[in-house]
Amino acid sequence: MKRETFRYRGDMDLDGFLREMERVGALGAGRLGRAARILEKMWSSDDVTVLLTVAGPAVAGGLGELFERLIREGLVDAVITSGANVVHDALDALGGIHVCLGERNVDGYGRVHDTHIPTEAFEKFEHFMREVLSDLSGRVSCRELLWEMGKRLESGFLRAAADEGVPIYSPGILDSMVGLHVWIHSQDHDFHLDLVDDMHHLADLVFEAEELGAIILGGSVPKHFAMGAAMLRGGLDYAVQITMDRPETGSLSGAPLEEGKSWEKVREDAEVATIVGDYLIIFPLLASGVMQRLGIV
Amino acid sequence: MKRETFRYRGDMDLDGFLREMERVGALGAGRLGRAARILEKMWSSDDVTVLLTVAGPAVAGGLGELFERLIREGLVDAVITSGANVVHDALDALGGIHVCLGERNVDGYGRVHDTHIPTEAFEKFEHFMREVLSDLSGRVSCRELLWEMGKRLESGFLRAAADEGVPIYSPGILDSMVGLHVWIHSQDHDFHLDLVDDMHHLADLVFEAEELGAIILGGSVPKHFAMGAAMLRGGLDYAVQITMDRPETGSLSGAPLEEGKSWEKVREDAEVATIVGDYLIIFPLLASGVMQRLGIV
Amino acid sequence: MKRETFRYRGDMDLDGFLREMERVGALGAGRLGRAARILEKMWSSDDVTVLLTVAGPAVAGGLGELFERLIREGLVDAVITSGANVVHDALDALGGIHVCLGERNVDGYGRVHDTHIPTEAFEKFEHFMREVLSDLSGRVSCRELLWEMGKRLESGFLRAAADEGVPIYSPGILDSMVGLHVWIHSQDHDFHLDLVDDMHHLADLVFEAEELGAIILGGSVPKHFAMGAAMLRGGLDYAVQITMDRPETGSLSGAPLEEGKSWEKVREDAEVATIVGDYLIIFPLLASGVMQRLGIV
Amino acid sequence: MKRETFRYRGDMDLDGFLREMERVGALGAGRLGRAARILEKMWSSDDVTVLLTVAGPAVAGGLGELFERLIREGLVDAVITSGANVVHDALDALGGIHVCLGERNVDGYGRVHDTHIPTEAFEKFEHFMREVLSDLSGRVSCRELLWEMGKRLESGFLRAAADEGVPIYSPGILDSMVGLHVWIHSQDHDFHLDLVDDMHHLADLVFEAEELGAIILGGSVPKHFAMGAAMLRGGLDYAVQITMDRPETGSLSGAPLEEGKSWEKVREDAEVATIVGDYLIIFPLLASGVMQRLGIV
Repeated sequence: MKRETFRYRGDMDLDGFLREMERVGALGAGRLGRAARILEKMWSSDDVTVLLTVAGPAVAGGLGELFERLIREGLVDAVITSGANVVHDALDALGGIHVCLGERNVDGYGRVHDTHIPTEAFEKFEHFMREVLSDLSGRVSCRELLWEMGKRLESGFLRAAADEGVPIYSPGILDSMVGLHVWIHSQDHDFHLDLVDDMHHLADLVFEAEELGAIILGGSVPKHFAMGAAMLRGGLDYAVQITMDRPETGSLSGAPLEEGKSWEKVREDAEVATIVGDYLIIFPLLASGVMQRLGIV
Repeated sequence: MKRETFRYRGDMDLDGFLREMERVGALGAGRLGRAARILEKMWSSDDVTVLLTVAGPAVAGGLGELFERLIREGLVDAVITSGANVVHDALDALGGIHVCLGERNVDGYGRVHDTHIPTEAFEKFEHFMREVLSDLSGRVSCRELLWEMGKRLESGFLRAAADEGVPIYSPGILDSMVGLHVWIHSQDHDFHLDLVDDMHHLADLVFEAEELGAIILGGSVPKHFAMGAAMLRGGLDYAVQITMDRPETGSLSGAPLEEGKSWEKVREDAEVATIVGDYLIIFPLLASGVMQRLGIV
Repeated sequence: MKRETFRYRGDMDLDGFLREMERVGALGAGRLGRAARILEKMWSSDDVTVLLTVAGPAVAGGLGELFERLIREGLVDAVITSGANVVHDALDALGGIHVCLGERNVDGYGRVHDTHIPTEAFEKFEHFMREVLSDLSGRVSCRELLWEMGKRLESGFLRAAADEGVPIYSPGILDSMVGLHVWIHSQDHDFHLDLVDDMHHLADLVFEAEELGAIILGGSVPKHFAMGAAMLRGGLDYAVQITMDRPETGSLSGAPLEEGKSWEKVREDAEVATIVGDYLIIFPLLASGVMQRLGIV
Repeated sequence: MKRETFRYRGDMDLDGFLREMERVGALGAGRLGRAARILEKMWSSDDVTVLLTVAGPAVAGGLGELFERLIREGLVDAVITSGANVVHDALDALGGIHVCLGERNVDGYGRVHDTHIPTEAFEKFEHFMREVLSDLSGRVSCRELLWEMGKRLESGFLRAAADEGVPIYSPGILDSMVGLHVWIHSQDHDFHLDLVDDMHHLADLVFEAEELGAIILGGSVPKHFAMGAAMLRGGLDYAVQITMDRPETGSLSGAPLEEGKSWEKVREDAEVATIVGDYLIIFPLLASGVMQRLGIV
């Protein structure tokens, strides 16, 4: 395939940019352009069950409302994410308080690089979690807990997931403030967080899928969990990943999707693309461009 | 502090190398040298409870026996790791089968970059897990499950942990082959993996610590889990992390330990050092050098 | 500043996307949004002399035509780049032959990751360079050599630079195929490449600037050369850099622009932004969006 | 090849560590172990001409004395480096002044991440350069200029190179303080820095080599220049590179040595190894371990 050169046009929208990247075809441009084409296939077919896996500070970095939109548009069928994203989504919904104060610690704030959350927000969150947990008892799956949280929030991707019945799995959630409150609550209540139950649920979803696709933002447990589930049906048919991790250290987070074929986590004939970059920039670009391509307004 | 220049000596051992790096003091050398000094403090005091957190392919990459040694020497009081490391430790103990076949997929093998595991090894592992799980019932914590695995293995860090009563926590274990077998087993048995129980256990360990230190290899859920626990007592007193992740994307994995102070995950006066590098090279160097310094033979 | 959440709109163009990133304000989004605002300032004022520094495979990766456009629009006043970009620009103009054959060596092609150039293209290039050099004698600066090349090419950024009288400096050019042919030619001709003369020229340009800005793609010698020249007037007033290099290793390539203030390469009150990412994706996005903002069609 | 596990020994020296890494064989350990074996071959044969290429802050980071040692031991036959390393070597020799003041700008100091040089040191350097340049006239190659500098310094790798007649090439030197002083001096003196002459000299060295090896620290112009020269004889026979750059962006700095085969910069049957890491840590480890292996005291 001939490599073309990028041509600026004053009327270029995001889809036009992605098409131009695909036309260029080389190196980073080619990877982005091919990823857009694969995402278009995932999103334009009713046969593809789409998993969105998210590690890293997606919500702190401003992507919560985009995830909400994807859920409401029916573009993702399940979300697998870290506890931190769940917490930040709830924090946003409970008062919208993230501020950008630069790369330094500031008294009274917890810091995520250049972005800060007032510690008092966590008191609200604690109060909120107590209410949520007080209405639950016995064995509760993670997706049920997160739906229960979503129902009580006025915005955010948890709320959208609750409204739309889209499962949110968070297999590593115990490392977060949700985990902390679950632990405290379960000390003197009949409450048991049943993370294994989510595996049943995801397995059913994967078995029933005609085709399976994944959008992988960052690596870590969410990526592992999705790829493990994909093994149950011989692997993913489509996958797009955006990562800053490199393959040579051997972590699954940085592993090329091609490597997944050796584990039957990715089908031999799957269409896959890896974009090397910060997904806080690349994903809104990619998702928005493909949504434009599909005529979503 | 004046920066010195590195001076070769024919009789330099690993401790000597780390001392020379500390003497140089600048950039990568300085970070390594300071990390060695902090690790020496953690390891030479009986008052410091030391958590080892491990994400990424530590065992596939050859560090299982070193972890075993650290446990047997009493140099780590708890290990927090991914399911994958647990699986690979058991695979090693069940037959010692990892081979290096280059950066390509090879029929009949699962691949971790340039290192391969025959798929038949996973059949042995399945058989092993069935035996382990058949002897357990009711609510079982992750550390109990892993001790039970360790008891049945002839080598590896799981065995050492079982022998020494050192807890292994693996809060994200459900993303792994252990998770898969737990899920299958719990479908028709009274078996419930109780990951929250490990939080009680770790909390006790942290509360009882006079001082708390962490050795952080890679980031991800193990790092988050340890730092979350450290919050319960106002933060870590000592920490050394080795990571390839960068801070600007905002992930906790790449976050400087300084940032942890804003969350009270790290004490204001803590001694901390971050080394940028592949821990499969840096950690055996660092750990061995400090063990030499302490006279361990 | 409050962090906002990214909001998709079906009619979003590239400028709209950059504005939305600025509105989000946090982490990668914030850095991109601020960079756009700084670039807008550089480009909308007649008082700012703008240096474009380019290391890495910009032209192989498809950016040659964009650079051409920037030169023709008067948006850059000088370009400082590697020999490789000069060579690939000429290769494109001499026949347009870059193909994408995947991440593997293919007989008869030189490879740049997933992009390939037939070795026969270099024969054309050799012939071309002989003609160029045969018309030159005595002391010739790099910018004069490159203008002479540009005049004989029908397209590309060298041609645009020759047409517009924009200097291209390539202080490390001897590491490239141009360097090779210069070396061969100067063995038996009175031809002397005078790279120091370009320093005079750039110094004049910098001294005459009311304000000085830099667009820094990758690091390496082009970045160093520009920042060294900026010292002559007390530093850059504006700078935007896009890099994958990290600061901790201490290379200038990965150094934050803030560090440049300690060398008076960047003014204390300069407006600067660093975007962490692959400039083959980020720069066409950023440049196109800001060109849209300025009404360039 | 079977992957082994790392085994600590209290009496392990640096060579023992590298051998243990080679025995492990997987991932980072394997790459380091293989690199040691290749370096051993380069250094133990009289037939191999060894080029050392150095980009990035090697001397600021403390490696100047190690380079000096390698030159004096006859382990490198030519050095290709950046202007910055030349400058810092001279600064060290003129007064030994680099201090580590942390990751912040400090008045009166130029900063390299966490390492600082007082600006007054550059006044000494200016005086030194004036003396050096006043004794030179006409066309002077870079290696001659650097030898002339070396002769007047009491220590450092420039001095060792001058003593031993080992050429130092610095094809991008004009981006540095040496470049600045050359430029100022040549404004009113008959002095012409002839960088092309170094290409003749390096070409002769390469043509006369029975076998050619390269130690590549960082990428950039030094790596490019060495690999370009290697093309003249069909490529390198041995190469070890240590880099933090990644291959996907397509820069030569991050390119695997395998890619060099497509350009005949590396022979098809060459022995090569890439280590991903900070060479300020990895290179002193690697070089010292192999020197121990060769019995150098």
